[in-house]
Parts: sequence; C-alpha cells; structure tokens
Amino acid sequence: MLQISNRGKQMPPSPIRKLVPYAEAAKKSGIKVFHLNIGQPDIETPPSILDAVRKADIPVLEYSHSAGNESYRRKLVSYYKSVGINVTHEQIMVTTGGSEAIMFGFFSCLNPGDEVIIPEPFYANYNGFAMQAGVKVVPITSYIENGFALPPINEFEKVITENTKAIIVCSPNNPTGYLYSRQEMEALKTICLEHKLYLFSDEAYREFSYSGEYTSAMHLEGMDENVVLMDTISKRYSACGARLGALVTKNKSVYDTAMKFAQARLSPPGLAQIMGEAAVDLPASYFDSPKAEYLKRRDLLVSRLNRMDGVFCPVPGGAFYAIASLPIDDSDVFCQWLLESFSHNGKTVMLAPATGFYGTPGLGKNEVRLAYVLNVKDLSDAMDCLEEALMQYPGRVQTVQSEFAIGNRQ
Amino acid sequence: MLQISNRGKQMPPSPIRKLVPYAEAAKKSGIKVFHLNIGQPDIETPPSILDAVRKADIPVLEYSHSAGNESYRRKLVSYYKSVGINVTHEQIMVTTGGSEAIMFGFFSCLNPGDEVIIPEPFYANYNGFAMQAGVKVVPITSYIENGFALPPINEFEKVITENTKAIIVCSPNNPTGYLYSRQEMEALKTICLEHKLYLFSDEAYREFSYSGEYTSAMHLEGMDENVVLMDTISKRYSACGARLGALVTKNKSVYDTAMKFAQARLSPPGLAQIMGEAAVDLPASYFDSPKAEYLKRRDLLVSRLNRMDGVFCPVPGGAFYAIASLPIDDSDVFCQWLLESFSHNGKTVMLAPATGFYGTPGLGKNEVRLAYVLNVKDLSDAMDCLEEALMQYPGRVQTVQSEFAIGNRQ
Repeated sequence: MLQISNRGKQMPPSPIRKLVPYAEAAKKSGIKVFHLNIGQPDIETPPSILDAVRKADIPVLEYSHSAGNESYRRKLVSYYKSVGINVTHEQIMVTTGGSEAIMFGFFSCLNPGDEVIIPEPFYANYNGFAMQAGVKVVPITSYIENGFALPPINEFEKVITENTKAIIVCSPNNPTGYLYSRQEMEALKTICLEHKLYLFSDEAYREFSYSGEYTSAMHLEGMDENVVLMDTISKRYSACGARLGALVTKNKSVYDTAMKFAQARLSPPGLAQIMGEAAVDLPASYFDSPKAEYLKRRDLLVSRLNRMDGVFCPVPGGAFYAIASLPIDDSDVFCQWLLESFSHNGKTVMLAPATGFYGTPGLGKNEVRLAYVLNVKDLSDAMDCLEEALMQYPGRVQTVQSEFAIGNRQ
Repeated sequence: MLQISNRGKQMPPSPIRKLVPYAEAAKKSGIKVFHLNIGQPDIETPPSILDAVRKADIPVLEYSHSAGNESYRRKLVSYYKSVGINVTHEQIMVTTGGSEAIMFGFFSCLNPGDEVIIPEPFYANYNGFAMQAGVKVVPITSYIENGFALPPINEFEKVITENTKAIIVCSPNNPTGYLYSRQEMEALKTICLEHKLYLFSDEAYREFSYSGEYTSAMHLEGMDENVVLMDTISKRYSACGARLGALVTKNKSVYDTAMKFAQARLSPPGLAQIMGEAAVDLPASYFDSPKAEYLKRRDLLVSRLNRMDGVFCPVPGGAFYAIASLPIDDSDVFCQWLLESFSHNGKTVMLAPATGFYGTPGLGKNEVRLAYVLNVKDLSDAMDCLEEALMQYPGRVQTVQSEFAIGNRQ
C-alpha cells in the first residue's frame, strides 16, 4: 500500500476552513452568510499599485533574484525607515507571502524536536509550519480577562527547556487584536537575551494599531542577532492574493541560510513585486482611511458584543480581529449550528471557533474570533444575527457557569 | 550562542547561482557574459496573457481558494485534456511554481529517512527540497554515451530498500534534455507498481519535445494511485517569474494531504492565476514558433559543440538544455575561469558545471550544462568563446584521458 507521510497525517486541517462546506450549504439554501470568519479585508486594493502592474513593460516575465528584485528591496528600506526600522536591502528577503517568511525562519533556525513558545491563542497556521519543520509548539496561555496581554515572564520561564529555541510573537495580534506595549516587547527581549532564543516577530498588522504606540521587535536595541521579522503586504495594502511578504533580519547567518531555501524555490512572485514597489510610494496618509474605517467597525463590534447578555469582548488595540466569550457550551458546535440550523431574516453569520487558536486542548470552547472585515451596515446586521442566535442556541449556558469556567481555568 | 538549524547548514547552495559573483565582476570590468547557465528563456511572454492581467477588474486582490481559483482549475482540465491527460479540477492543485508542487509532493508522501531514487544528473533543487523534508536522495547514474537514457531496471532494483518510497523522473529532462520514450516510461511504471513506489513526474518541459512522442506519467494506465505530476507554466509560456505551477494527482489521499499544506500557506499567487487562465486560451499553434526557435538553437549548439576538438554533446530530444563533455580537468574550475580569467573579443560565456547535477560525488567533472536560451546569433558568439576558451584553458586534458575517465566510470 502506498502510504501518506506521518507529517501529512498529523498536519492539522485549517480550523477556519473546516466550516466552509456548511457555509456553502447555507448559501445554496438561499441564506446570506456574513463572513466574520477570515481575515480577508473588503478594503479596496489601492488602484495605483494595480496600475503599476498594468503599466509595466514586461517583454519576458523572468525569475527575479531569489531574495526579490533589488529595486523592490531598496524601496522596502525606505518603507521600513518610515516605521522606525533601520535595515539595509541585504537584510530584507522578499518572500511568497508572510507564510513563506515563517517557513524560512523555522527551517533556518530550528531543528526537528526544537520547541517554540507561543502565547495562545495564536495564528493557527503556525501549527502547520511547525509540523512541516518537525518543531514542537509550546503554548503559554493569555487570558481574555486582561485582553490577552503578554503572560508574565515567569510563565515563559516555567516552560523553557534546553530544547527551547524561539518565541513567536504577533503584534498587533491575530486572533486577539491585542497590541503589545513597549514594556511587553522589552520583557520579551529580556527573556530572549537571557535564554538565547530567537524572537520571531510576525508583524502582518503593523499599520493597524489604534490604542497606543506600535513597537516592532526591530525597535528593540541590542538583540539584532535574535530578531527575525516576518512581514507581508497582505493586510497592509489589502492585497492578500498578491502573496508577497518579507523575512527581515540583521542576523547574517540566518539570512544566508534562509537564502539557500529561497534559492531552492527560485524566486518570489514577479507581478506582486511590481505592486509592492509601487505601494511604497503611497502617501503616508493612505492608511488614514482604512484605519478610520477599521476603528469604526471595531467600536461598533465591541459595543454591540458587550451589550449582549453573557458576552464579553475586550477592546482590541490593533489588527482587525476580536475574541469574544459567549454563553455557549462549545464554540465549534455553535459555529456549525449558526450555518446549519439558524437564520435570522434569511441571514446568518460565520465565525471562527477560538478552539483552533489554542494549543492547549479544551481552551477556547466558549470563545469565538470575529474578523471585522465587513462594512458597518453588514457588521451591524451580523451582530443582529449573533444576538438572536445566542437567544435561540440550544447549547446556551448560564453566564455564571461560563465565568466559573473561566475562573477555573486560571 | 544562537544556532542555525542543521538542515540549514546542510542545505546545498544553488550550484548554478554560486558563480554569480564572478559573472558580476566580469560584467563590471566591461566583459559581455553570455548566460547559458540558467533556464531563463528569452522567448517573449505571450502578450495576451499579460493583457489579461491588465484588463482584469480587481477591486480587492483577495486570497484565492487554497487549491487555486476553481475557474483556473477548470480551464486547466481542458489544457490537460489537450495533451492527453484526463483529470478533473478536483485533482488539480494550483501551486506557487513547480517548486511548491515538489515540496507538497515530498511532504505529503515521504517521511524523514525515506529514500527517493532519481536518475542522475538531475535538477539540483530536488536536493534542497529533499533536505527540507529530511528525505534521502539515492541517485542512479545515466550516461552521456547513450544520451542519458533511463538506466536499466536492474539498476533501480539494486538500490531499492524498504525505505524507498518514490522515483522522480523529469521528461523532457533538465539538465540533460533527454526525452524518455514510451518504453522507458512503461519500465518506470513496472518498477513503481512492483515495489509500491510513488512516481513523481516533473513535466515542466512537456511542450518542448523535438525528437519523438511525448509520454506523460499520466498517460500510463493502471497507476493512478502512484503518479504525482509536478507542473509549471514557467517554461511553457516563458513566464518563470509568475510562480505558477500545479500538483496533479488522482490519488485522493495525496491530494487531501497536500491540501492541508496548501491551506497553511493560504493561496497561490492571484495575478499569476489570471495569466494562467488566459494562457489556456492560446491557440495550439502558439507553441510552433518557440519550438521552432529552440530547435534551431539546439541544432546550432549541438553541431558547434561536436565540431570542437575533444567535445561530445548528445542530441537532446527535448527541453532547452544539453550536457556536453569537455576536455577539461574540472568543470567547476573551468566555469569559474571562464568568468574570472578569460575573454574573447570582450566576451565570455557562463555555463553550469555538471557536478551540481550529480548526486554521486566526483561525477560530472568533465561535463557542463548549457541552456540554449539565447538567440542564434548570441549562441554562435557564445560557441566562439567556448571554442577559444578550450584552447586557452590551462586545465585542458587530452581527449584520450577524458575518454579513459568515462570508460573507468561505468
């Protein structure tokens, strides 16, 4: 018998996409589904960056440099400078989305059996890349009660072993929307320097901070060797489909090693690099409008949620996600029920069960992630659906019970 | 000390790209360098497929389906049908270049420690992907004397162990240009069925067969479960920079497993998929002109090479590569010398030492790979350079000695 690989068998399916068949069935039966389940923004991709592709003279669409076109990397130097990050074009490697930057980071720095610590809930695909690299994810829990702030240093120290090689941090955070403070980033620096750990910093949502100053891992001093920044233009310019990211590091050994993986796959996408280059020329004011839009949505979402009986949603400081605790027995069952058995005026809402974002089994059962990627009108309709659904859901639990569960968990 | 991963340390640098600094230095000193070292065609990318991108209305460049846009996959069904391959859109997974198709195939089917047999010389980046997946490459040697035909079945059987899980075949072949016959493909089928092996079939050069009928692994009957086809539009439409490929398989377990890896990286490039879709609409006659052009180049290259003293180049049946044996001591030294210490009328030529394409250490030392991706005039000038260089090269050896070495090797 031909066999599938063990990695392939153990590879987790996407926790977000597993509900897709139910959503498709709901749509087929005529129900309108509001998609708050994935981070696909509805914000227009800046027309100027698509125009750059339209206007480009491309007799032959050639392989680019494996690290990306030098012209684009030089442009990125000025982009990073504008956000207080000083790097050279030889410290920037253009990747196929942020995903590939994560892959290159894992494969360049980690051996099979090595451990990476990640504050949970976390971006579920880290699991997939860890599986691919044979790396063990060690979660440490952050809690909804304090808005998913960084767990205290001693929580990290409890789980650090001789196999621990890195910490992954994502700020502003997907899935929680939490924006790490300067103090928290400095705390991470302390741990990484003391225990000689890489700090993999996923900064996909850099531009979307609302509640305070944004601190990049690259703003931290004295840890040039430790920081590997994983970046993408997907959210920054609402260009998820471009598949264009970057791995940025001042650690030359890491860069040179990642370059070998980059050479094996030849080059990042060519047309997307033209877009990326044009994007650097957008005025700084470009972000004002999407940020204002997201902020309006966030405020609507959070206030609607917190007015619902038994629901709690901390105010996210960045990105366009929020996690809310609901008076429900099981978020996986609830999210499926929303699609399979519920509608309100012919509409329903698709959410991501938070269980998929926790590494610790059993956590997130009364939490869902909401991506506020719809306009205010749709978001408001979606909240109407959720409010009604929570009243009808057969697995509704008493708020008291839910709080008890949270209390127990700590 | 922060450490680089073992995989990263062991990962081979690109054998083709390691000479790049010498080429850059030569250019800086005013020497024209003819690039016969990489498979970057100079053929125009069909303007209609770039126009499709220019004309596309893209308000938001969204993630596509992780398996690629369904509309593109449905188009590919008709493309594959046109080359005698019958598959459904649910057996096609759109990938980021052929590279990612190779990766997904390795990660879905192979465990660390598993072995894949590859006739050598072979595409050097298989080594990189094997290293990433922890898989061992077991080469079996094909020989320039018979144009790099498939080694006889008993050569495969000699190296098959309980860890052998797959054979990789590439036809028309990179780097040899060899086109496997129907008979040879059937021989591979026999081995794979008998020993329950996957047949990974890299068909990047499908359209470029000159000397006989092209046989795809998907043309073989009764081995649907074994075949994993790795494809790309890079060479087909001279669109290397698009980074668009496909993994095609009728083995549902392999497909479903690859899908989990595909979901982790979200989606293949969006703009490239628009190109790919438009490419399927090109008339069948589109290939006539590039094929005629490559054929002209091949004939020039091969006849020029074989007229040089001590040089032998078998006639390649497909792709746009040839391997030639030269009267030299060491192809790595020779190729570097061409860039560093030689010029002819202000020109020189960049070749790929064949050593990088062999898995067996020591082989390929008197061979180079030439990619005939330049127009006939440049190619002719490049051959002038090579002819002159072989006369001047201090490490020139007697042809007799070279033949003796070949004789010894078998």
